[in-house]
Amino acid sequence: MKTTTQVGIIGAGPAGLLLALLLQRKGIASAVLEQRSREDIEATIKAGVLEHPTAELLRQLGVGARMDREGFVHEGIELAFGGRRHRIDLPELTGGKTITVYPQHEVIKDLVAAVLAAGISIEFGVTAVSLHDVTSATPSIRYEKDGAAHELRCDFIGGCDGFHGPSRQAIPQALRQEHLKAYPCGWFGILCEAPPSSDELIYAQSERGFVLLSTRSQTVQRMYFQCDPNDHVDNWSDDRIWAEFQARLANGDGWQVKEGRIFQKGIIAMRSFICETLRHGRLFLAGDSAHIVPPTGAKGLNLAAGDVVLLSRAITTYYRQDSEAGLDAYATQALKRIWRGEHFSWWMTQMLHDFEGEDSITRRFRRAQLDYVVSSRAAAMSLAENYVGLPFEGIESV
Amino acid sequence: MKTTTQVGIIGAGPAGLLLALLLQRKGIASAVLEQRSREDIEATIKAGVLEHPTAELLRQLGVGARMDREGFVHEGIELAFGGRRHRIDLPELTGGKTITVYPQHEVIKDLVAAVLAAGISIEFGVTAVSLHDVTSATPSIRYEKDGAAHELRCDFIGGCDGFHGPSRQAIPQALRQEHLKAYPCGWFGILCEAPPSSDELIYAQSERGFVLLSTRSQTVQRMYFQCDPNDHVDNWSDDRIWAEFQARLANGDGWQVKEGRIFQKGIIAMRSFICETLRHGRLFLAGDSAHIVPPTGAKGLNLAAGDVVLLSRAITTYYRQDSEAGLDAYATQALKRIWRGEHFSWWMTQMLHDFEGEDSITRRFRRAQLDYVVSSRAAAMSLAENYVGLPFEGIESV
Repeated sequence: MKTTTQVGIIGAGPAGLLLALLLQRKGIASAVLEQRSREDIEATIKAGVLEHPTAELLRQLGVGARMDREGFVHEGIELAFGGRRHRIDLPELTGGKTITVYPQHEVIKDLVAAVLAAGISIEFGVTAVSLHDVTSATPSIRYEKDGAAHELRCDFIGGCDGFHGPSRQAIPQALRQEHLKAYPCGWFGILCEAPPSSDELIYAQSERGFVLLSTRSQTVQRMYFQCDPNDHVDNWSDDRIWAEFQARLANGDGWQVKEGRIFQKGIIAMRSFICETLRHGRLFLAGDSAHIVPPTGAKGLNLAAGDVVLLSRAITTYYRQDSEAGLDAYATQALKRIWRGEHFSWWMTQMLHDFEGEDSITRRFRRAQLDYVVSSRAAAMSLAENYVGLPFEGIESV
Repeated sequence: MKTTTQVGIIGAGPAGLLLALLLQRKGIASAVLEQRSREDIEATIKAGVLEHPTAELLRQLGVGARMDREGFVHEGIELAFGGRRHRIDLPELTGGKTITVYPQHEVIKDLVAAVLAAGISIEFGVTAVSLHDVTSATPSIRYEKDGAAHELRCDFIGGCDGFHGPSRQAIPQALRQEHLKAYPCGWFGILCEAPPSSDELIYAQSERGFVLLSTRSQTVQRMYFQCDPNDHVDNWSDDRIWAEFQARLANGDGWQVKEGRIFQKGIIAMRSFICETLRHGRLFLAGDSAHIVPPTGAKGLNLAAGDVVLLSRAITTYYRQDSEAGLDAYATQALKRIWRGEHFSWWMTQMLHDFEGEDSITRRFRRAQLDYVVSSRAAAMSLAENYVGLPFEGIESV
């Protein structure tokens, strides 16, 4: 079956769904294709930190009500090292900005509901997705659903299909440069039924490795510890996991992480990835299809939001002003903010993780960096402004 | 011949000479031993950037008059990359602080004159320097001069004899941890007769390698370009040197580096080195004997000054208050500021130098860091506060 729209969007993650809503507000039609089921995407646990500009964007798009009701506004994070905890006061350092802890799958639920309520089509469970004629004025996306072949014809394709999706591969290899850094560690993540150990996120550096404590609710906690990327969850009994958390967080003041029933375990790879360019003809990449960050800076979803703000503006300029200027500038403009987020994510990662085989001076530079961040107002401001999120370019015109 | 003093100082570099003056102001006697001749130490060209606290210290010690007359106060530095130059306004970012460009050998001349004028002995041209009984209450320094053996008995030894001196070696290897990083590049430095190419220092990053332009006077300039550390000056004709500077500094606006007769050429190794601890019994290390920085942050002399401010205070406390508290705290306190300077020097170095064999993402992170430093006030403040120099601990009580 052949259908037609203005913007064909591949992927119903944060990038694709936000793009659909942003375009709809400008009267531009789109349709969304997603390989997975609605139940699946609404249940997959991912990051949970929304930057100040991302939270603002959700409110502006009318999808911030549940976030404001159920999410947690955090006014600080803690850096723990050398047996002490040091607070980074986000609003004090950034002129009033905060972060909102609200899990990504909850954002997805809100966005899916809003997209469907706006009358935008989302086809879930599509397979064999392929991109065609992307350098022509009439690109199309072919896919199968329930055994039948379909074609979605459009003016533009939004490639929001994540790292493993077909969109990036539709840019000839000779026309894209891919930058990759794989870190020699992973994060072992758990979800557990326990009260919060801390009101705020704790980023802890220790000789046994990094720990991140974050909270989902008054009864569910999300915690991570640095691990061998080739380790297996089966090697880690609940007892061993809790012993490791306690050992890494011991700080001599009697404070202890609160334990509870662990109901999910998983190991996350740590890598930095950027594809340049973001454009090929009428195909535009946004979100994880173009860039991956290690989770240390909590930037994944937030970078995706920045991308689609720019992309929606570029497409709007095309339709309203018959100008390709925005489209031509998209990759360069978006990559500025992407490289900032990628650099920050690398910086947080290298500051908080010891890696195998490092020389002693590298570890001492790390400690000197941490000591400096918590003793210099300028350095703390720099961390804070990145953590709460630098402004989206052009957010005011969303 | 045997002589006696309170503090025996090995090395008439900035650390040793400043220590002698600081002690003298508190009525504590010292004597300085130096392997080289006075002519030699007063002619050796080294770094030329004095931090704000260092310049203040020289004034407080009454040795700032010629610096204030002949040195150049700089209110900014420039970072050049991507074909553009970006100014870091030092006083605007640091509440009024500046740097002073005044060559190290001129500082040495002023310090030697002041030390001798204060009646403190400096023995130049000593050989076979060795340290004895440093863990006893009566350490001594043996040396030869003009073929005769001498012994200097003292209460304390100031080990200010640089990286290659005997003081650090007098700490048993098992009691010290040495941290070393050798950078895979060198700096090719020249002195030339030319007018200044710029009123302020220019730190330039380019794909051909790093360049630093600095000035000595209206007629003499000091310039460096990044080179292979195993290269030889003989491989570089004057024409080739100037062609390299011009190529690395080309920025499309017609501005060019001003050429002139080159009268000195040399290659500097780039390394970071820190010895922990700084103390063994009555022996205390200060300056290059304990730590080396790559020249990128212009911190060498300035870290030495910070060390001896603390050390002189610790020794004064010992004599005046009969307390070893300052001596016991010296290594820990001094190492705080040393690690900060070492980290900053590493940070400047890795931000401004491409190295052989790096992956593409490392180079792009470098560019993202540079873009951030010149676009974020917090990041620029962080660079500026380190560059003008963080306060000496306890400078107010000098």
